[in-house]
Amino acid sequence: MMQVKLRADERIDRLYSKDISIIQSPEVFSFSLDAVLLADFAKVSSKRIKEVVDLCAGNGAVGLFLSEATTAHITMIEIQQRLADMAKRSVLLNDLEGKITVINDDLRNATNYVKKDSVDVVVCNPPYFVNYDTSEKNPNKYLAIARHELTTTLDQIVAVAAGLLKMNAKLFMVYRPDRLTDLFFSLRSNRLEPKVVQLVRPRNGSDANMVLVEAIKDGKPNGLKIKPDVITYDGDAYTPQVKKMLYGTTK
Amino acid sequence: MMQVKLRADERIDRLYSKDISIIQSPEVFSFSLDAVLLADFAKVSSKRIKEVVDLCAGNGAVGLFLSEATTAHITMIEIQQRLADMAKRSVLLNDLEGKITVINDDLRNATNYVKKDSVDVVVCNPPYFVNYDTSEKNPNKYLAIARHELTTTLDQIVAVAAGLLKMNAKLFMVYRPDRLTDLFFSLRSNRLEPKVVQLVRPRNGSDANMVLVEAIKDGKPNGLKIKPDVITYDGDAYTPQVKKMLYGTTK
Repeated sequence: MMQVKLRADERIDRLYSKDISIIQSPEVFSFSLDAVLLADFAKVSSKRIKEVVDLCAGNGAVGLFLSEATTAHITMIEIQQRLADMAKRSVLLNDLEGKITVINDDLRNATNYVKKDSVDVVVCNPPYFVNYDTSEKNPNKYLAIARHELTTTLDQIVAVAAGLLKMNAKLFMVYRPDRLTDLFFSLRSNRLEPKVVQLVRPRNGSDANMVLVEAIKDGKPNGLKIKPDVITYDGDAYTPQVKKMLYGTTK
Repeated sequence: MMQVKLRADERIDRLYSKDISIIQSPEVFSFSLDAVLLADFAKVSSKRIKEVVDLCAGNGAVGLFLSEATTAHITMIEIQQRLADMAKRSVLLNDLEGKITVINDDLRNATNYVKKDSVDVVVCNPPYFVNYDTSEKNPNKYLAIARHELTTTLDQIVAVAAGLLKMNAKLFMVYRPDRLTDLFFSLRSNRLEPKVVQLVRPRNGSDANMVLVEAIKDGKPNGLKIKPDVITYDGDAYTPQVKKMLYGTTK
């Protein structure tokens, strides 16, 4: 494993299920369960998948977690210089520089790096919150940009994803149920038809707190499947399903 | 209980949980679990609710099941003469002619009977299937009209519901997950914002086979809640939750 320099606020965490090391910083960005769930939900194992793009890549968690499951090249696009730098060092740390490219730019410039209509899979764990003038934002600018639509919007992200994808290729996203109507509108308005939904609930019998969506570019309208839920906790412990995603074992 | 005439193909079924008798016919129309689930999901008990409209009322199941839970007047609108006649006789059978009015007309004419912007709650168990030229329809015309969009469409139904409802009043619908994107598009495009979704699964761990949606007229965008599921069966028996809806007891 390559040596990389860590800043004072950084640490290296491991996702044991994938044998991936990832540079995290509580002051800047740490991946959350959302990234693990999205990487588990996304289907990238087919040999026909040659190019995967991770939009709003943050510190690179989703792309790094996917790398083991795919033979494709992965392009991560992240607007925040500091986060993209963390992702780059994590790529080195895992000896994945031949497989993963990290781009530090606005996703609106994505086609400067990746050809339009050429991508087999796009994954995205975007900022969830509308940037209302009145909405309270994190005073930490790194976290605020990752959580609120300060530098992009759902519609913009989905439009970029649709532009990159080949016909019949798939977008996988994690989002909040709160804005599911916005998400469905954005998707269908951008030639991406929702085909699979999976809800995540913190506990059995709770309201859903996350939603995973698979959409197909130029897919026929409707035919949406709502799969069995992911339940996060059983009492104070993760459920076997989530333990498997995190540790690779249900123990 | 008033005596009513039954046709040769008709029988009287009872929904024990609500103490309601309902005229059914396997050849024409029988209510299914969808109607029971919708009646359970719809919130009509507030004393401020004065007028409830049941669109695509069929043999009147949903409105009849709701009658016990509300002090409101209920208007049922059903396009099929034979089904509206069954609903009318069921209303008499339950001595509910002071509370329920059955209209046999196309729902597009709803405002001939009920004032625009005057209704507190609309409920609807609509036909689920798009009328594609290629789609196989039931050779029985009664059933075909109840199931396929032969005489109306989702957009038309939702537009009529939105026209009837007061501002901030609610629509409750049962639908298929397959067309959830269509439903969300219709709702938001007609000033009805989805606020609550509840999925129905035949078994724990199955894909959802029905979806219940509550939408608010002129509601602010988003704020959607996805409630805990309804599970229909446990082994070969109904779950306690569904038994309660059907029999009024979990035994």
